[in-house]
Amino acid sequence: MAFGWIDEQAELRARAGLVRTLRPRPADSPLLDLASNDYLGLARHPEVTEGAARAARTWGGGATGSRLVTGTTELHAELERELADFCGFEAALVFSSGYAANLAAVTALAPHGSLIVSDAGNHASLIDGCRLARGTTQVVAHAEPDASRKALAGHEGTAIAVSDTVFSVDGDAAPLAALAEACREHGAGLVVDDAHGLGVLGDGGRGAPQAAGLAGADDVVATVTLSKSLGSQGGAVLGPARVVEHLVNAARTFIFDTGLAPAAAGAALSALRLLRREPERAARARAVAGELHARLTAAGLEAVRPDAAVVSVRAPSPEDAVNWAARCRAAGLAVGCFRPPSVPDGISRLRLTARADLTGQQIERAVGLIGETRP
Amino acid sequence: MAFGWIDEQAELRARAGLVRTLRPRPADSPLLDLASNDYLGLARHPEVTEGAARAARTWGGGATGSRLVTGTTELHAELERELADFCGFEAALVFSSGYAANLAAVTALAPHGSLIVSDAGNHASLIDGCRLARGTTQVVAHAEPDASRKALAGHEGTAIAVSDTVFSVDGDAAPLAALAEACREHGAGLVVDDAHGLGVLGDGGRGAPQAAGLAGADDVVATVTLSKSLGSQGGAVLGPARVVEHLVNAARTFIFDTGLAPAAAGAALSALRLLRREPERAARARAVAGELHARLTAAGLEAVRPDAAVVSVRAPSPEDAVNWAARCRAAGLAVGCFRPPSVPDGISRLRLTARADLTGQQIERAVGLIGETRP
Repeated sequence: MAFGWIDEQAELRARAGLVRTLRPRPADSPLLDLASNDYLGLARHPEVTEGAARAARTWGGGATGSRLVTGTTELHAELERELADFCGFEAALVFSSGYAANLAAVTALAPHGSLIVSDAGNHASLIDGCRLARGTTQVVAHAEPDASRKALAGHEGTAIAVSDTVFSVDGDAAPLAALAEACREHGAGLVVDDAHGLGVLGDGGRGAPQAAGLAGADDVVATVTLSKSLGSQGGAVLGPARVVEHLVNAARTFIFDTGLAPAAAGAALSALRLLRREPERAARARAVAGELHARLTAAGLEAVRPDAAVVSVRAPSPEDAVNWAARCRAAGLAVGCFRPPSVPDGISRLRLTARADLTGQQIERAVGLIGETRP
Repeated sequence: MAFGWIDEQAELRARAGLVRTLRPRPADSPLLDLASNDYLGLARHPEVTEGAARAARTWGGGATGSRLVTGTTELHAELERELADFCGFEAALVFSSGYAANLAAVTALAPHGSLIVSDAGNHASLIDGCRLARGTTQVVAHAEPDASRKALAGHEGTAIAVSDTVFSVDGDAAPLAALAEACREHGAGLVVDDAHGLGVLGDGGRGAPQAAGLAGADDVVATVTLSKSLGSQGGAVLGPARVVEHLVNAARTFIFDTGLAPAAAGAALSALRLLRREPERAARARAVAGELHARLTAAGLEAVRPDAAVVSVRAPSPEDAVNWAARCRAAGLAVGCFRPPSVPDGISRLRLTARADLTGQQIERAVGLIGETRP
C-alpha cells in the first residue's frame, strides 16, 4: 500500500515513547500557563484582540493574494514602518510566519558559491533555510564565535553567519557582539533570528540586536516573529532597505505566499504600540525568569540560567520528561516538554516560559508543583 | 561590504525590467479586482470577518505556541473536522500557510531512498518541498501522466507523485484521474495541491480530488489553502488519519511553527460553513471564468480556456505585460501580471481571477478595458 511504511515508523515511535499527540485546549483553560511563548502576556490583552477584530472588519478575513499582487495593504506598510523604527532598523518586511521569514532571509542572502556558517543549535527554520539555499552550509559549534571565525576565514567570497539570538530550547543567548566582530573581520553578513529576543531583550524590548549595538548596521539582518511577545502570528525580516528590496524580488516564501492576514497584522501592531507605551513589560519578563531560575535551583532542580524569558529544566530521559510534564498538567500547570528530535543535544527537558504577567504567587505555585512532581 | 553584491543584482533586474515593488492598497480600493485569489468573494463577507473578530476575542490574538505545545485550540480541531468532512477525507491538519502545508506533506511523505515525481509546472512551495525532502526528485513534463508513469516504473520502493490540481499561472487542470491510475499501477502515493480547486471545483466547491473521485482514498493526500476561496490565511493537509498522525510527528513546518492564529481559523471556518450553505458560489465562479474567456477570445485576445477560476491572457513580453497591467490599473482595473521568474515557461501574461461575485456588467467592463489597453 502506498503509505504502508508510515505504520512501521509509527510503531517505532510508540516503542521509543516518542509519540506526539495534539491536545486541543478550551478558550478558558484552567491551567497555569508556563508553556506558551506569550512572553509579555499580550495574546489575550483586549487592545491586541481588538486590534485583530478591527483589522478583520476593516481589511477583510485574508490578504487575498501574494503581497506582490493584492496582498499588501496600508496596514502591512504601517506595521513594517513601526516595527523597523522600534527595533532600530532601516526597513522591515512582514511574512505569514517566522518560519517563512527565516527561509527567505537565509535563501535570499546565500547565493550560489557563498558560505553559510550556521550555529549547531539553530532553529529548524534556519536549518531548512540553509538546506534550501544555493550556498554551502558549514555547521559550527554552538555559541562559539571562534568556530565561526575559523569557518569564515577558510572561504573566499560572499558569506553570512546565521544564529538564533536566544536559543529556544535552553534559553541561552548567542554571543552576538563577538559573532559580529568575527563577521566583520571577514566582510561577512550577520543574520540573526530574534524570535525569543524581541519584547524581552534590549531597551524596552527592542530586541537582542539593539542590546548588542547591532541594530541598523549595514551588515546585520534580523528576523523576528509576531507570534511570541507580540501575541499574534507572522514574522518579519529587519535590515538595510536594499536587503528588504532584494527579498521582495528574490525570496520565494515572500513572492509565492499569501500575505499575512489583516487580523494578525492588526494584533501585532496593537501589541507593538502597547509595548512602546509600557516598556517595563520587557524587564518584568526578565525578572520573572531570574526569579523562576533562582527558586528552581534552590529547590535542587537542574535549571539553566536564563538569558531571556525561557527557563530550561533537565530531565533524566524522554519518558521522564513526558511523565513529569503530564504530572504538572494533572496538578494544573502547563509546561513545555522538549525531547528528541526537537532537541539538538538529545537531552530532554521541561521548558518554562517566564511570562511578564506572572505574579509572585503564581511563580511560587509553579516551582512548588515542578518540585513535587519531579521524577 | 557584506551585502554589496545585492546592488549588482538590483541593477541587472532594473535593466531587464523585472523590478518588483509593493503597492499598499487602501481599505476601500476603487479598483475592480480581477487580481486577487478571493475566488468566492468571501474575504470581505461580514460572516467571515465576524468569524475572525469573534475568534480573536474568544481565543486571543495568536495561538501562543507550536500546535504541539499550547497552539492547538478546540477551534483548530473544529476547523479540521469540518474541512476533512467537507472535502471527503478522513482527517485534516491545519498549518499557518499553504506554503507550510506543502513543505510538510512533501518532506514527510518522501523519506530517504524514495522517489518524488514532480510536475514541471508545480507551485514554488511544492518545489521547495522536493528540495527539502530526503527522497530524490524527478521532474516530469507538465500534465503528462505517461511521463509520471514512466518515472515511477523506473524506481523500486516508496514513491509519490506530486502535482497542483489547478496550475496557478495558466489556470489549467492536472489530469488527476490518469495520474492516480499511473500511481496505483506502481503502488505510489499521490500528493496534490488543491489551492486553486477548493471552493471552485467538485460538488459545491469540495475540490478537485472530490471531482475526480479521489477524495478519501487511502493513497491520496491533498493540500489546500484557507487564503483563497475561504478568504482567510493558512493551509491544511487532508488525507488518511495515519498520514495526518505521521505529519504531527514528523513534519518540521508543523512541529516548529506557531499554530495558525485563531482569527484566521475562525474566518476560514465561517467561510466553509457559508460555502456549505451556498454551494452555488462554486458553480458561479466557474461560469464567470467561462464568460470571461469567451468574451476575451471574441475580442481577439489570446486567453487560455479555464478549467477553474483563473483566466490567463498572454502578453508579448515582460515589459508589455507590466505596461498592460499598469494601463488597466490606471483605468480602474486590477489584474495580475506574471512574468519571469514566476512563470515556468518564461511566457509573461495577465492573470485574471473569475470571482464568483462579479456581475455581468463588471465582466463586460473588465474585458473592455483589457482590450482597449492591449499592447
